[in-house]
Amino acid sequence: MRQLIELLPHENIVYFGDTARVPYGNKSAEVIREYAVQDAKFLVSKGVKIIVIACNTASALAMDVVHAYSPVPTIGVIEPTAKEAAKLAGSKGVGVIGTLSTIGSEAYTSALRRIDSKSRIMTQACPLFVPLAEEGMFDHQVTDLVAREYLSQFTGKVDVMILGCTHYPLLRGAISRVLGNVVSLVDAGEATAKSVFELLSSSKMLNPQKSKPRYEFYVSDFPQKFNEIAESFLGRKLEFVRKVQIYSNGEIR
Amino acid sequence: MRQLIELLPHENIVYFGDTARVPYGNKSAEVIREYAVQDAKFLVSKGVKIIVIACNTASALAMDVVHAYSPVPTIGVIEPTAKEAAKLAGSKGVGVIGTLSTIGSEAYTSALRRIDSKSRIMTQACPLFVPLAEEGMFDHQVTDLVAREYLSQFTGKVDVMILGCTHYPLLRGAISRVLGNVVSLVDAGEATAKSVFELLSSSKMLNPQKSKPRYEFYVSDFPQKFNEIAESFLGRKLEFVRKVQIYSNGEIR
Repeated sequence: MRQLIELLPHENIVYFGDTARVPYGNKSAEVIREYAVQDAKFLVSKGVKIIVIACNTASALAMDVVHAYSPVPTIGVIEPTAKEAAKLAGSKGVGVIGTLSTIGSEAYTSALRRIDSKSRIMTQACPLFVPLAEEGMFDHQVTDLVAREYLSQFTGKVDVMILGCTHYPLLRGAISRVLGNVVSLVDAGEATAKSVFELLSSSKMLNPQKSKPRYEFYVSDFPQKFNEIAESFLGRKLEFVRKVQIYSNGEIR
Repeated sequence: MRQLIELLPHENIVYFGDTARVPYGNKSAEVIREYAVQDAKFLVSKGVKIIVIACNTASALAMDVVHAYSPVPTIGVIEPTAKEAAKLAGSKGVGVIGTLSTIGSEAYTSALRRIDSKSRIMTQACPLFVPLAEEGMFDHQVTDLVAREYLSQFTGKVDVMILGCTHYPLLRGAISRVLGNVVSLVDAGEATAKSVFELLSSSKMLNPQKSKPRYEFYVSDFPQKFNEIAESFLGRKLEFVRKVQIYSNGEIR
């Protein structure tokens, strides 16, 4: 969302955060696919012109079902991010970190191999990074220690690291301290926003209006510390926020 | 469940783990209360004679609504655990650790004050303990560091510490290393199992059959690493495990 706002400052954005059912990262593929389609239906009911699956886990596991359902174009984070990483990769190869589900799905590995069948890929699930980021422990010795635990194995072995989870850019500092400056960190959000920009331009779907855009945030719950966490992600105050209900047969409204 | 099996080896037990929607610990009170009643309805549909809310968060926030709904007796973890802690407390007082929701609800503080209006109480939410326990990092320097962060303030100030979350007994080692042996750790599971035993005996509801009991585990999802985590909690293999669906209007079957 933050990256989209930067790159597409005139687009209205409808955001849905399934806060009652997060985290998706350690649920089964079956449940993630069911929830992702319900989420997409909600966005379509709001009249959007394109759906961005701004979650690595949902993109990795549910891209096909959301695409099959959706009457509007759908962009996930995996393809654009893999493309960006492949562009930056040198002789050593690409590292990928993400949730258990994202890494377990091998979605990044498949996408990278489709671009270059000989690419060298190392992956690692980092399940503690999400709670650390949500605790706001961006620069804390605990986070440094956890980062060392997960990432030391990559030292000297990759030239690019895909931050394959929305939370990880918040831990960029700790991640860089282990990997060093020689490794480029590829932010899935940034790569995906570029892809959205390209799609909207090439298909002439950009908003012709240059007025101040409208941002609508919908969530399925107001969890503890919601505003605090949301604002640390977005870097701004949320103005329009509504709680929606998840109904019978998964309808959200 | 583990404590119940030890204390009541002849009782059949129906377990429901709402694995599709966990963790409850950082959701809003409203959502927790809604889910807890749905969960209780499922257990009642299985013909149980008593419901144990074996979750501190649900006990802290939803005991009244589950009790109001339930046609069978209901026991939560807060009252029995507070009673046990009050019994062990000396001149210094009682510490309580739990999830954000449990601590925020002040359920333990109220329960302890009902027993002794002058009791001295210190509380602290420890949101990283659940993910650390689920990662199996029981004896790890990261866990020790996090424990020091949360618990140093208690040193010399309490004689009892309530482990107010089902996951925390798994981190007993790290917690003791910070608090020292002089502080008694009160396990909510153990105190609650005792209470269940007392209720069943005094109301003559104990199972008269002495045959091998039946344990049925129902979950709403098979998350990543489910068996691994479940077995580390239970200390035994799960034999009967079924996945149930959460339907329209919250019905679970």
